[in-house]
Amino acid sequence: MVYLVGRRGSMYFITTNPGKFNEVKRIANEHNIEINWLKLKYPELQGDDLVEIAKESARILSTKIRDKFFIEDSGLFIEALKGFPGPYSSYVFKTIGNKGILKLMEGQTNRSAYFKAVVAYFDGDQVHTFTGKVNGTISRELRGFGGFGFDPIFEYKGRTFAEMGEEKNKVSHRRIAFKKFFEWLTRK
Amino acid sequence: MVYLVGRRGSMYFITTNPGKFNEVKRIANEHNIEINWLKLKYPELQGDDLVEIAKESARILSTKIRDKFFIEDSGLFIEALKGFPGPYSSYVFKTIGNKGILKLMEGQTNRSAYFKAVVAYFDGDQVHTFTGKVNGTISRELRGFGGFGFDPIFEYKGRTFAEMGEEKNKVSHRRIAFKKFFEWLTRK
Repeated sequence: MVYLVGRRGSMYFITTNPGKFNEVKRIANEHNIEINWLKLKYPELQGDDLVEIAKESARILSTKIRDKFFIEDSGLFIEALKGFPGPYSSYVFKTIGNKGILKLMEGQTNRSAYFKAVVAYFDGDQVHTFTGKVNGTISRELRGFGGFGFDPIFEYKGRTFAEMGEEKNKVSHRRIAFKKFFEWLTRK
Repeated sequence: MVYLVGRRGSMYFITTNPGKFNEVKRIANEHNIEINWLKLKYPELQGDDLVEIAKESARILSTKIRDKFFIEDSGLFIEALKGFPGPYSSYVFKTIGNKGILKLMEGQTNRSAYFKAVVAYFDGDQVHTFTGKVNGTISRELRGFGGFGFDPIFEYKGRTFAEMGEEKNKVSHRRIAFKKFFEWLTRK
């Protein structure tokens, strides 16, 4: 793997997803924080714990990158399915997708689920993590065209994330995690 | 993590699963090869490719273990589900289980699937891999009480792996991969 080395003093958001970068850049702007994009795929370990997975990825990256950087990982956890798809949400989305999840949930009365996001930040010395969580339920059918991934089946206060459009970004797990992170950075 | 250092010259099978160790020990015996058990959990990367995942785990382990060792990983790949559960078979088994897979397969006419096993062997210098594959279909219901994991829903020539008992071990993906590995070792 080849890693870039950035300008000294800058802070990088490492993600291959341009939509994610732009969403986070807007949140950073609200806190007067400047972030740069480093488009890079990095290794992720298997495991049950999203925080541990992100921490370990940041540790691996920190051996190659000298600048400050952060990464973000998130997952959908469905109570009746023992947390599935959890840390493997993107693989599960790519394979069985929203329709697969709805099929697995047929006949389930407990439809509780949550989205969780983890930010892992390397400050040049150690890794810090910040989490955000939003509770909701799994809908009975796909609804809405906004967002991405499992948004059309994740219902929050009567609407799915896909039906909420930009409003989703005000209440999302990702927003909560990044708000914690940027407020912490500002306090320092 | 703490790693054991074994007797010089011995070869270790690293697995936390005693049933797997015993099954492989029997195959090794048929080839007059002696193996030792090193019960150790090791990191596995996320990814679509079982071979790459096993290779990388072996590389990571090789930085900590001086002796020759091998690991084995396997997965169930279902064609109609784009390969799901694939590399995440054990997580998927722990969460949605056989019943979840049968639910996902309801109404599917294409029931083709295969089990794949990968052995990654570190010879003290580099990592070699050996694979085994067995084709079958996903049954319409759970059948049989032998084996473990997805064996009760994997049908091979009219019977599920769980119905085949010891006979399964003569035709399994694991047997094929280890036969290749041990024959290669013997030829060297």
